[in-house]
Amino acid sequence: MNPRSGPPSPWRTRPAAARPVAGRPPEQRIHGVNACLAAFARRRDALRKVYLDEARIPLFKEVLAWCVSRRVGYRVVGGADLERLTGSRHHEGVCFDLLKPSPLPLDALLQRLPAPPSPSLLLWLDGVGNPHNLGALLRSAAHFGADGVLVPASSNLDVSGAAARVAEGAAEFVPLVHAATAPDAWAALRGAGYRIAATVPREGASLYATGLPARLVLVLGAEGEGMQPTMIADADLRLGIPGSGQVESLNVAASAAVLLGEWWRQNRSPPAPPA
Amino acid sequence: MNPRSGPPSPWRTRPAAARPVAGRPPEQRIHGVNACLAAFARRRDALRKVYLDEARIPLFKEVLAWCVSRRVGYRVVGGADLERLTGSRHHEGVCFDLLKPSPLPLDALLQRLPAPPSPSLLLWLDGVGNPHNLGALLRSAAHFGADGVLVPASSNLDVSGAAARVAEGAAEFVPLVHAATAPDAWAALRGAGYRIAATVPREGASLYATGLPARLVLVLGAEGEGMQPTMIADADLRLGIPGSGQVESLNVAASAAVLLGEWWRQNRSPPAPPA
Repeated sequence: MNPRSGPPSPWRTRPAAARPVAGRPPEQRIHGVNACLAAFARRRDALRKVYLDEARIPLFKEVLAWCVSRRVGYRVVGGADLERLTGSRHHEGVCFDLLKPSPLPLDALLQRLPAPPSPSLLLWLDGVGNPHNLGALLRSAAHFGADGVLVPASSNLDVSGAAARVAEGAAEFVPLVHAATAPDAWAALRGAGYRIAATVPREGASLYATGLPARLVLVLGAEGEGMQPTMIADADLRLGIPGSGQVESLNVAASAAVLLGEWWRQNRSPPAPPA
Repeated sequence: MNPRSGPPSPWRTRPAAARPVAGRPPEQRIHGVNACLAAFARRRDALRKVYLDEARIPLFKEVLAWCVSRRVGYRVVGGADLERLTGSRHHEGVCFDLLKPSPLPLDALLQRLPAPPSPSLLLWLDGVGNPHNLGALLRSAAHFGADGVLVPASSNLDVSGAAARVAEGAAEFVPLVHAATAPDAWAALRGAGYRIAATVPREGASLYATGLPARLVLVLGAEGEGMQPTMIADADLRLGIPGSGQVESLNVAASAAVLLGEWWRQNRSPPAPPA
């Protein structure tokens, strides 16, 4: 994603941690060692400011050299400053201000993905709000090669500093796409050869007894309330993760890991050798 | 587990949130709606004190009636008190002080589990320290019917209030066992028909191309450092979770969910109908 190009954002987003300044492009503030190193590796031109603990200087030598050569400001600060800047005790000694990537529209995402019948997996989040869950989801999505995480246009979900830290750099690989309203977006996805699978706690087909389509959108519901009933009814498949029944459900990030892994096993993993 | 019986604990444990009193049995303090309701359902005799927000009274009516009938103290308190009592903003309006369950020794766990060749899955945690990861692990372990979570005797890992909350009640179903030193414990586990699988980020056999033994101990390493090399060498299998290679590894709780799910698929799930 080139953070400096693309259409202006028509989407409501969570305010960036970095303070917005009128007339200047929006920025984002992320923290965490792997999150910051991955952002530097993928879009160093977007870097606007670096704050780091003295102990982090060796690990960020290349970043600081870049800052000097491009006149990007950096400051060596203490832990209390980093806590204040990031709003977190888990800053890991570093935070970056970056130009915020322009939101990627769904049609632009679909255009750059391989055409059918190539395997492709997308996640659709219906109400996931916890930044730690979003970060964990992004990390698992990157691990299993998902091509994007879609959220409805009405969602104010965004990659916060905490989500970026928990994603351990994965937020740089898996685009978060605000995807218009569900019926329109689902029609576009079906037009691109995807089938849409709702994940449900009860009365779904067992994940392990279902052939998962090679081009699949996995829809995950909010922690607590789950997916909206109309979305469950409109989906092409309804999947459940079988288990002991001792607990009501898996955590949404654990569900996503299990679903992503099973899709990978069925569609991307070479078949097991005959026993 | 009966919290009032069993041998005295020879193990080092994290201090309970509830203040220890000399000469009195150790207590634990847990918080979160599902964690507290599950503790009440499974071991109400261990309940010593209930603190709750006024808004939680309807949901905990049965608990409060029990408190009255058994002369267990309860107090209706405000959010600030709960934050102080639990050390967390995520208390969900309730916390319990309970008698701490006596640690379950490995041989007692093995005696109560079904004998070979019945399927049985255990987790061994080598250095996992984050209470949110432990809570998420316990929830996935309960979902997929794992029979216990083992930690080395030297570990000070324990089910904290935060871990219990994130586990959403699962900590009541999956015992946490402090299991002597690894070589002795592993010998006992092998004697009970278990094979031991290390999970490694690189150079393991693909999880999806490996037949997983029906009686299996999955060993998971610390966030960051991973498992100790001697443990990896001593294991019977070395498993990796294949993926895109975009990120170095999965989060330990996501890894556990994927591994548990694949074990369930291979050993507990009915075979898929012929296509």
